[in-house]
Amino acid sequence: MMSTSDSVSPPPTAAALGDRLYRLVEALVPLRRCLTGDGLRKTLARLAEEAPVAITEVATGTPVLDWTIPPEWHVREAYLATPDGRRIVDWADSALHVVQYSQSVHDRMTLAALRPHLHSLPERPDWVPYRTSYYTPAWGFCLAHRTLDALAAEVGDDTPLEVVIDADHRDGSLTYGEIVVPGETEDEILLSAHACHPHLANDNAASLAVAAALASDRAAGPPRRHTLRVLVAPGTLGAIAWLHQNRATLARIRHGLVLANLGDGGSLTYKQTRRATLDGAPHAVDRAVALAARDLGVPLDVRSFSPTGYDERQFASPGIDLPVGRLTRTPHGEYPEYHTSADDLTLVRPDALAASYGALAATLDILDGDARYRSRVPDGEPQLGRRGLYAPVGGQPVAPDAQTALLWVLNLADGSHSLLDAAVHSGLPFRTLRAAADRALAAGLLDPADA
Amino acid sequence: MMSTSDSVSPPPTAAALGDRLYRLVEALVPLRRCLTGDGLRKTLARLAEEAPVAITEVATGTPVLDWTIPPEWHVREAYLATPDGRRIVDWADSALHVVQYSQSVHDRMTLAALRPHLHSLPERPDWVPYRTSYYTPAWGFCLAHRTLDALAAEVGDDTPLEVVIDADHRDGSLTYGEIVVPGETEDEILLSAHACHPHLANDNAASLAVAAALASDRAAGPPRRHTLRVLVAPGTLGAIAWLHQNRATLARIRHGLVLANLGDGGSLTYKQTRRATLDGAPHAVDRAVALAARDLGVPLDVRSFSPTGYDERQFASPGIDLPVGRLTRTPHGEYPEYHTSADDLTLVRPDALAASYGALAATLDILDGDARYRSRVPDGEPQLGRRGLYAPVGGQPVAPDAQTALLWVLNLADGSHSLLDAAVHSGLPFRTLRAAADRALAAGLLDPADA
Amino acid sequence: MMSTSDSVSPPPTAAALGDRLYRLVEALVPLRRCLTGDGLRKTLARLAEEAPVAITEVATGTPVLDWTIPPEWHVREAYLATPDGRRIVDWADSALHVVQYSQSVHDRMTLAALRPHLHSLPERPDWVPYRTSYYTPAWGFCLAHRTLDALAAEVGDDTPLEVVIDADHRDGSLTYGEIVVPGETEDEILLSAHACHPHLANDNAASLAVAAALASDRAAGPPRRHTLRVLVAPGTLGAIAWLHQNRATLARIRHGLVLANLGDGGSLTYKQTRRATLDGAPHAVDRAVALAARDLGVPLDVRSFSPTGYDERQFASPGIDLPVGRLTRTPHGEYPEYHTSADDLTLVRPDALAASYGALAATLDILDGDARYRSRVPDGEPQLGRRGLYAPVGGQPVAPDAQTALLWVLNLADGSHSLLDAAVHSGLPFRTLRAAADRALAAGLLDPADA
Repeated sequence: MMSTSDSVSPPPTAAALGDRLYRLVEALVPLRRCLTGDGLRKTLARLAEEAPVAITEVATGTPVLDWTIPPEWHVREAYLATPDGRRIVDWADSALHVVQYSQSVHDRMTLAALRPHLHSLPERPDWVPYRTSYYTPAWGFCLAHRTLDALAAEVGDDTPLEVVIDADHRDGSLTYGEIVVPGETEDEILLSAHACHPHLANDNAASLAVAAALASDRAAGPPRRHTLRVLVAPGTLGAIAWLHQNRATLARIRHGLVLANLGDGGSLTYKQTRRATLDGAPHAVDRAVALAARDLGVPLDVRSFSPTGYDERQFASPGIDLPVGRLTRTPHGEYPEYHTSADDLTLVRPDALAASYGALAATLDILDGDARYRSRVPDGEPQLGRRGLYAPVGGQPVAPDAQTALLWVLNLADGSHSLLDAAVHSGLPFRTLRAAADRALAAGLLDPADA
Repeated sequence: MMSTSDSVSPPPTAAALGDRLYRLVEALVPLRRCLTGDGLRKTLARLAEEAPVAITEVATGTPVLDWTIPPEWHVREAYLATPDGRRIVDWADSALHVVQYSQSVHDRMTLAALRPHLHSLPERPDWVPYRTSYYTPAWGFCLAHRTLDALAAEVGDDTPLEVVIDADHRDGSLTYGEIVVPGETEDEILLSAHACHPHLANDNAASLAVAAALASDRAAGPPRRHTLRVLVAPGTLGAIAWLHQNRATLARIRHGLVLANLGDGGSLTYKQTRRATLDGAPHAVDRAVALAARDLGVPLDVRSFSPTGYDERQFASPGIDLPVGRLTRTPHGEYPEYHTSADDLTLVRPDALAASYGALAATLDILDGDARYRSRVPDGEPQLGRRGLYAPVGGQPVAPDAQTALLWVLNLADGSHSLLDAAVHSGLPFRTLRAAADRALAAGLLDPADA
Repeated sequence: MMSTSDSVSPPPTAAALGDRLYRLVEALVPLRRCLTGDGLRKTLARLAEEAPVAITEVATGTPVLDWTIPPEWHVREAYLATPDGRRIVDWADSALHVVQYSQSVHDRMTLAALRPHLHSLPERPDWVPYRTSYYTPAWGFCLAHRTLDALAAEVGDDTPLEVVIDADHRDGSLTYGEIVVPGETEDEILLSAHACHPHLANDNAASLAVAAALASDRAAGPPRRHTLRVLVAPGTLGAIAWLHQNRATLARIRHGLVLANLGDGGSLTYKQTRRATLDGAPHAVDRAVALAARDLGVPLDVRSFSPTGYDERQFASPGIDLPVGRLTRTPHGEYPEYHTSADDLTLVRPDALAASYGALAATLDILDGDARYRSRVPDGEPQLGRRGLYAPVGGQPVAPDAQTALLWVLNLADGSHSLLDAAVHSGLPFRTLRAAADRALAAGLLDPADA
């Protein structure tokens, strides 16, 4: 279980990393992800080009916790057309134009009758909203408000329009994928990113790209202490299906992060685990994210837990209660483009993707590198000088960080405090403490306390 | 034990409530309350017009904890007169003019000899101070300093003045009253207000009015979870006598508040329970008062516990240690009129009385409505949509409060967190969470965890 | 175990105390303290003029914890001279001129060859640095940078200079001294001050003076609850040797303070115990120092624990973990004169020495006077009036501190809260609470809870 300092992530060139991640986002944006179906499968297939993805299909009708897997939704064609056949909105242009899971309709309706089925954003007249109706039979179109206004001006309220949604709901399955990077132990770190929003770039193609690239890089390096599991699943029901099917082995999840919105230009935001907020007891993952940001010198906006948001809702349900935080840049609902067609590639920045990757990698480095030790020389300080671990000439007012770090590691080697504690209390970077622990281990000064 | 949202207090018209409370204060101010005796009994009789008051008389000589019930004090006449018979101060004008429990005296004394027995406030020359000597035999007069100066100017130091206190200390009893509003359980909320200050309006006729009116209103409504007990007793010894006589059943008191000074124009002040301050462990009553003020949008000045003040001193004595906080507007000693004749009806405002009533009622609503639950669907979120508890069309960036509240209730339904926790962490009003819990109970999603 | 208020330190005249302490510092500064040897012995001898010092000699070669006692270092002569015999630096002038524990050398060397053995401070050209090489064989001179520059200008790089360190390392012993002032119990307060820096005044002659004078004064007064132990030992190895030899009785140390830099003009700085920082659990010594400063009205800069600094490093090692804080004025390394010849008598101020003494004495008063009690009248307040402990006439808005203190003492007499808690929560001076407890004990209201 000895971590070694050379297992710390080498800093990739930020620009190269940003480009690589951005290209992956570019590949994911066109795909028509949904709660189920082929857009989701294509997304997983694209990620599998980065790292091996294990696919699970859960058949329509399968009970999963309190829910049931619904049919798949297949759209052949969907549009709204003027009497002269001009298509005002067309599924062929964007999957956003149709309320996800809409029922079929073939009709001629006036605009007045249609309006309850039309979704637009009067205050953002050029953007198309994203809407769903997975579990309540309904149908509808989403369109730019400017388009709607122009149509109304052109045809008025009484002209019959052609309304076509040629779709069916048929037995199939819900799909999720997992990338697993085996570690030295079966203890796992779970990274979970939702993959059900068609086209949207920041929410959540950006996070899919970051997670897959990081898993790929970790798989290429030496094994870490924890097994890394990246779960890519449709929101809510995907997490519920996964929890249902993995109920017996959830105890392996020692730390988790839901990942979302990792590509926008906002600074990092962390949402605490349930226990941190409700019981005032921060979990290691809460502390690791904060420490990673501190060590990287980047701001981190820490939010308290709430049972709203992304799939942390499921992981934090009272019967599950896994220690899963959430890492985003700008949280959902706090940027105007959220859940609209404007959440596109222009919202995502290579530097932001690279910075998100860096913070996530640093967090994993801390979680993998953290450990408790017991000193073999607990009474008084060990004589470090004779072990070559101390400056030979004394009296200088400032000691080098490496030496200070060693004193911290040895002082906290009481079996109850960890390297993470030492990093927090000393103000020294975690990697400096990890390196000091490695030197102390090599000098025979420490025993692992966890083993 | 199911609380229902229609048991929440309907908001009375603030103006009407203020008038009603003010009229009750007006009726109480003239009464000559004292440690014992008929002024106290008349006070209880007037309160009994609002709500049934159970009277307890504890006979003179009865040992109560470390104390003994003293004789009653009856004053027939008391005055200070010039040689020509003009009364300078007269008990007939105000009970404040005589040091409470003064011994009898019939004498002619010069002003020089009298001065040690005269209490006045040089810096507040128009106000008469309130003084007592219950347990040390003594006598004295309290008067406006301007009156004293005028007398001195008129008669000089050597003129003999007529000094009369025609009073006796005779066997009788100490009286206290209790208004009990039965609840669904024997668990009690105790409201305690002292009733021993003659005439003083804010301290404490105001609180007697608020407590009696609230008890009256609760008695007229559906039963709450807790039995409500309003104790009206003379300060210190009344509480001690009550504690003595109820020693065996004190464990029923689950929450308590001492009420004082609820009529002045200052904002609300809350004094924490002993445990909250000494052990950093806020009790539910500490949290409920703070939450009530937050939900009402009124400022609350929270003070730490101290073993000084009103009867919280007795309830927090180390052998008793009940969870009793104290709710006031301006605390004792922090307004200049405190313990003087200027604590009169002009100091008390109908709107302040109504606001005090409102904060107290909201606090009781929280204590009665708070509960812990266990989810029957603890793993993952229950599918709320099929139960009609969730918006059918998804994707909107902001959820309604009622839906958010439901997610909080379900997430915290782990048997250890309560609705009060949910209100604090969510920022939503307590009543919104209580209503959500009622919907979840109705949908069969929760079991009570306390039962 | 009854402490009485007349055991509280009488306030000495600050000026007289400051003079007395300063004279003692003056006597200590010329002595050539080192890790071992006669300068250290002379220091202890001088302190023994203030209070009895028990001397321990630990022989060269003795294993102490992870270390071994080294030989003593004796210097007969050491200098650097120009070809014409003029001594540029000379051990005879100052012990600082030679790296402590330097090996012998008799050679002629050019300045170029010498430079690696010369220590100076280019940015403080008039000051001579203090350097050591106790455990690594080496030799060197310390000198003012201005002296070095002048020498270089005079002789250039190629002139051979005379280099003499006539020293030997021979078997002997490491010396430490202890002043023990017996208390009523074997529970101890440890004050530890290092004594290994030749000449330096603030670091640490000042603390030696304060500690010895305080021990002397305490020995002359009535016994306190705790036995006071002042340890005067060379830094690091002295503490390690003492810990080694007293391993079996360390549990007697109930509170400890490392003392350093108590003479400079900076305000007081306190470094927390290990447990206070790492576990957020302040020990009584942490609280006592803060309370002493509060009661004295002097600022206190509280720092968190770190395993760097003075001998708190040893006392806080994980196998020892004694509750030892550190009291200084300006901490080491934070004043420019630190570890240089400029840490001389001009840096030390009589008023600062007296203020340090005062804060330390007040801290010990709190630790000795603190106690837990159980009330013999725990239910309700005892009737203080009949015991002569309460103002006879009631109604005044402000109670005297002595009466308020008594209420605090009685309220907290629950066996778990202490007088220190009462002082913190009440805002009253500790000595007022101690006096109130003494009155309550005399009135038979309290039983000790610790006994």
